Amino acid sequence: MATHKLLLLPGDGIGPEVMGEVKRLIDWLNASGIAKFETDTGLVGGAAFDAHKVSISEGDMAKAKDADAVIFGAVGGPKWDAVPYEVRPEAGLLRLRKDLALFANLRPAVCYPALADASSLKREAIEGLDIVIVRELTGGVYFGEPKTITDLGNGQKRAIDTQVYDTYEIERIGRVAFELAKKRKNKVTSMEKRNVMKSGVLWNEVMTQVHKREYPDVTLEHQLADSGGMMLVKWPKQFDVIVTDNLFGDMLSDIAAMLTGSLGMLPSASLGEVDVKSKKRKALYEPVHGSAPDIAGQGLANPIAMISSFGMALRYSFDMGALADKLDQAIAAVLASGLRTADIKSEGTKAASTTQMGEAILKEL
Amino acid sequence: MATHKLLLLPGDGIGPEVMGEVKRLIDWLNASGIAKFETDTGLVGGAAFDAHKVSISEGDMAKAKDADAVIFGAVGGPKWDAVPYEVRPEAGLLRLRKDLALFANLRPAVCYPALADASSLKREAIEGLDIVIVRELTGGVYFGEPKTITDLGNGQKRAIDTQVYDTYEIERIGRVAFELAKKRKNKVTSMEKRNVMKSGVLWNEVMTQVHKREYPDVTLEHQLADSGGMMLVKWPKQFDVIVTDNLFGDMLSDIAAMLTGSLGMLPSASLGEVDVKSKKRKALYEPVHGSAPDIAGQGLANPIAMISSFGMALRYSFDMGALADKLDQAIAAVLASGLRTADIKSEGTKAASTTQMGEAILKEL
Ligand SMILES: CC(C)[C@H](C(=O)O)[C@@H](O)C(=O)O
Ligand SMILES: CC(C)[C@H](C(=O)O)[C@@H](O)C(=O)O
Repeated sequence: MATHKLLLLPGDGIGPEVMGEVKRLIDWLNASGIAKFETDTGLVGGAAFDAHKVSISEGDMAKAKDADAVIFGAVGGPKWDAVPYEVRPEAGLLRLRKDLALFANLRPAVCYPALADASSLKREAIEGLDIVIVRELTGGVYFGEPKTITDLGNGQKRAIDTQVYDTYEIERIGRVAFELAKKRKNKVTSMEKRNVMKSGVLWNEVMTQVHKREYPDVTLEHQLADSGGMMLVKWPKQFDVIVTDNLFGDMLSDIAAMLTGSLGMLPSASLGEVDVKSKKRKALYEPVHGSAPDIAGQGLANPIAMISSFGMALRYSFDMGALADKLDQAIAAVLASGLRTADIKSEGTKAASTTQMGEAILKEL
Repeated sequence: MATHKLLLLPGDGIGPEVMGEVKRLIDWLNASGIAKFETDTGLVGGAAFDAHKVSISEGDMAKAKDADAVIFGAVGGPKWDAVPYEVRPEAGLLRLRKDLALFANLRPAVCYPALADASSLKREAIEGLDIVIVRELTGGVYFGEPKTITDLGNGQKRAIDTQVYDTYEIERIGRVAFELAKKRKNKVTSMEKRNVMKSGVLWNEVMTQVHKREYPDVTLEHQLADSGGMMLVKWPKQFDVIVTDNLFGDMLSDIAAMLTGSLGMLPSASLGEVDVKSKKRKALYEPVHGSAPDIAGQGLANPIAMISSFGMALRYSFDMGALADKLDQAIAAVLASGLRTADIKSEGTKAASTTQMGEAILKEL
């Protein structure tokens, strides 16, 4: 049996708690001989700042590059609001994405039937919702230069951010979206603001070419990102795979996640290019939710998004789709049994702590 | 009685139809001696392209600069999808905003009780909703340079857009938001992405200063634009005034509009600085909805957003707040009577065409 190297980066806030439940799962998989994971743990975000005055140390970056997959918790919190911009907690996450070249961020927005009532949307609008947002993750305004604040004198400053996209960056994220759609409902909706942004014009042009050249059998639709956001709120089920740039993807995937009412349940995968020789790809898995400093350390956090992110690792990094399916079923079964962490608690359900939820899922598995 | 000069720019799609109902209202106000409007009409968007191969002619731009207010319909449609970028329909609107220096875009998102069920959100989440998005309109990625597509050879192109914000641009939009909040629930929420964008860092810093220095009695909260978008979907009533940049404002105001279920009902005002001498300010009023080419010319369009935008003109440009209030009441009364255009039709209501709706509102007034 192959040994898989994992780097766990719990981060800040509820990160360590939810990561604890993944650790429990990994230990059990190892102990029961189902898989062989070798885990190492590192610091990222505020935790790394507190220890080393950086957002991630060079040592941990080296470990991340060496690992078969990085399992990431969450970063940030008011405690680090005043630290220098270059070492703010988020910088650690952004560096991991950039230095590991994790250009493809997959964010499923699925509505668990047991939780449909937790949404602010009407049940009919979201019941059965199953879409994926494919977000470009290493380009655009997140990384473009110049990115500066200049003092102009007279009490005036000027801030500049730059959105840059090259053809190849749009092509490769397009392919990820089309490939994914082929295994799903065969439809891709590309979103940009071509009526205002040159990067939107190029995005639209390249998506259209990739479609024509390589995926003529997949349905491709184009939508302006603002009206796409509207449509997402109005009738999200009209979508299958949405592909969009880094910043629009940030906004749209958060909104899609909130629609489901299951924010504490949604996982994500950030993937690099498949290496021609080793057939491996760099990957980082993280929950869509943040570090939730207000509830940290109280056993209130919902570990499902984190566990489910590990499920995506099984599927996309380790070719253990069958095990990932079983994990998904275990989660659904535990929810059906009525067990709920505080964020998804409703009348007639049974309260569970982070640990109790993690244990119940493991037991079901 | 002072004469007010209006330039009507109906534009494309349903623009001319909905503008027709404002024209009816203006004619009546003139005829009944309530006010004195001098109107001129121009071409913008696809209509200007068809006539002059531009998105707005120099003559119409001169008229716009000369007018006390511009009343704008909507622009764009598939017919002009392939026209050169520089003369695409949207360019006319963007030029008006920029050349008239209309930096403050006010977009109320109000849920009409009679229409609460048209929303995809649960009634309790949106009933009574009354928020305003204050969007910066002449800066950011919409107008920053460089804004280019360059051919790199090898089949590769590079697209660049630039987000630029100076201190004074953030200060003046901040003041608009704080002033507005003072007349409302006294709360401003500023949204940016300071964890990723330098313009977000400056935005946050300047808002905080303006607040401390000039509006310490108004509550100011900061939210990251992505989680702000989430909160908007989860519980929009927590907001009063939201202030944000051009691009985030584009996304967030569209989403807020869709929440209400009343997209065809929502007006907007785009305002310039008040001139020290004349005490006047340049202004443009337009509905939030687009040109809806699919239903154009069939008498199906809802004229309420357009009429209500004219109501904002009465309020913000002509100091006729009392008349604007009466117009709002007339709209509410007609809705309460059960009259509905196709977009807001539901069981047990009476169908009305664009003209019938316009006439009913006028009659009520
Ligand atoms: C933490 C932050 C830098 C990050 C982003 O903006 O990408 C987060 O919002 C996300 O969506 O993963
Ligand atoms: C038509 C388009 C240029 C415009 C914008 O992006 O600002 C529109 O979406 C709006 O919100 O007024």
